[in-house]
Amino acid sequence: MNAPDIAGETDRALIDGVLAGERRALAKAITLIESTRLDHQARAQDLLAALLPRSGGAVRVGISGVPGVGKSTFIEALGLFLIDQGKRVAVLAVDPSSTISGGSILGDKTRMERLSQRPEAFIRPSPSSGSLGGVAEKTREALLLCEAAGYEVVIVETVGVGQSETAVAGMTDVFVLLQLPNAGDDLQAIKKGIVELADIVVFNKADIDRHAAEMAAAQMRTALTMLRPASAHWKPPVLKASAAKNEGLAEFWQSVAAHRAALEAAGALVAKRRHQALAWMWQLIDSGLRARFRDHPGVRAALPQLLDAVDGGTVTPAAAAQQLLGCLSHDYETPNYD
Amino acid sequence: MNAPDIAGETDRALIDGVLAGERRALAKAITLIESTRLDHQARAQDLLAALLPRSGGAVRVGISGVPGVGKSTFIEALGLFLIDQGKRVAVLAVDPSSTISGGSILGDKTRMERLSQRPEAFIRPSPSSGSLGGVAEKTREALLLCEAAGYEVVIVETVGVGQSETAVAGMTDVFVLLQLPNAGDDLQAIKKGIVELADIVVFNKADIDRHAAEMAAAQMRTALTMLRPASAHWKPPVLKASAAKNEGLAEFWQSVAAHRAALEAAGALVAKRRHQALAWMWQLIDSGLRARFRDHPGVRAALPQLLDAVDGGTVTPAAAAQQLLGCLSHDYETPNYD
Repeated sequence: MNAPDIAGETDRALIDGVLAGERRALAKAITLIESTRLDHQARAQDLLAALLPRSGGAVRVGISGVPGVGKSTFIEALGLFLIDQGKRVAVLAVDPSSTISGGSILGDKTRMERLSQRPEAFIRPSPSSGSLGGVAEKTREALLLCEAAGYEVVIVETVGVGQSETAVAGMTDVFVLLQLPNAGDDLQAIKKGIVELADIVVFNKADIDRHAAEMAAAQMRTALTMLRPASAHWKPPVLKASAAKNEGLAEFWQSVAAHRAALEAAGALVAKRRHQALAWMWQLIDSGLRARFRDHPGVRAALPQLLDAVDGGTVTPAAAAQQLLGCLSHDYETPNYD
Repeated sequence: MNAPDIAGETDRALIDGVLAGERRALAKAITLIESTRLDHQARAQDLLAALLPRSGGAVRVGISGVPGVGKSTFIEALGLFLIDQGKRVAVLAVDPSSTISGGSILGDKTRMERLSQRPEAFIRPSPSSGSLGGVAEKTREALLLCEAAGYEVVIVETVGVGQSETAVAGMTDVFVLLQLPNAGDDLQAIKKGIVELADIVVFNKADIDRHAAEMAAAQMRTALTMLRPASAHWKPPVLKASAAKNEGLAEFWQSVAAHRAALEAAGALVAKRRHQALAWMWQLIDSGLRARFRDHPGVRAALPQLLDAVDGGTVTPAAAAQQLLGCLSHDYETPNYD
């Protein structure tokens, strides 16, 4: 799927198209929010403001797993299963590697071929420019657009490297870790801090060696007990599936529904989404502050010498930081400490 | 040891006292840098600037372990062992809990009683006010003062909760994880990201159950292989000790020396300290930027409404962040994007 051209369409038409659930309009709207052109960014903000009141209606599912775990097969099988249940399904991705290679998970047209041919599905590769923060921001906004377009389930896929998982868990209602029935994988996921994010763990390809899958699941249950802070409303289940054979998908979706019901009963779903939005705002502010600091003329003038001085051990890091922050002070009114 | 009074001594005398290795002068100088009074802070910066050229000479050892692991006993035994080798030893601490309770590891006078009676030792509790960042900053500066006072080994102790370990590993040459020979502990340390920081792991109290200690050590070796990025110059050893019985200390110190020799041979010790100093500077800048942002009159005026709007879902986090950052722009010259 090539990025559609944005030109030649009024934004009103785009908004109406998204609200009518037209895939072509949705794709164009996402291209607009991903654009780095300043005029596009201004239009994108207006578009988002118009569509925001219609967002929020989907089940937001984050799915993580290392390459080889069968993530595409699982998501495709899940998507087809959900469509059979009468749902419309969008699949987005956060792939930090795409910012380097220009490639992207889901970028390969041959992946999820059966799902992509269904009119009830919308599949979009990861934005491929900017920092992880930038990629995640665009995906978060694309998720809101998918909701405005009426998709009842939005799946956000990512690749199991740690940082991107935190971003995806921060924009979804339920975070799913796909694992291989292989004991060594546990440690990697634990190390990267992914296990403690998981609301549901699924051992995929469980049909290959059912005994190994059972062992790995038991080990993961122990790890979860130690790693997940106790929660009154949810204890993450460890499931088995074999997406290639369509096994375990119904049970998985029951778990997603049970998780949602538990959160809603506790009033925690609304609270979780609020918390996510505020955390996201503060993260954007932090990176904005850093960018402004580095761009400040006074800082740019003083930085090289101070870096050398800290590097050479003639100025403490604290003194250098204070001096650099002092460069900004001339822009503020003089503070009065008396 | 009560904090000595700072009044009634010229800073020149204080500097000379520190350089002469006087413990009383060193204690006063650290009290000065820990003071939150603005006039003290200005004097502290001058003091540090004067002493900085004489710092850098110690072996900086970070030691972490959960309560109950026998950290005090280990550090006391190690300190006495090093004094017997003709060295002077300083012990500092980073204890995030002290910022809440006002208490502090090492604050208890009865701890390390034998070590504290030795004139070759200097023991200082954790600074007990401010954020973890603030506590760590003061400890880092105290470490420089100890070096200027001629201590050949500076041990920085911390408590095994994760964040403080990162801070201590960021100010020491070698980071040591003390563990109990108990398999469950492994997962906790792995989860908190402490294992991957460790240059040396020591199973303490190994005499209680030597078989269990051997099993736990083997398990830790496996975990380290998976969790530590491969390094050309160092593979973290897993040792056993029983500090209460003075077992394993000589072997431990040999490992510290071997680690140092390996780093120095690769030119990596200087590079490590430089990297630590610069990382520290950027961290201070980040927290300074955040504090300034929150104090800015425009931000303070706009923030409550925007928080409500993000909370209520009527403004996206990105739009709110942009608007808040825009409050600062009036202080800068108007940027010109053309």
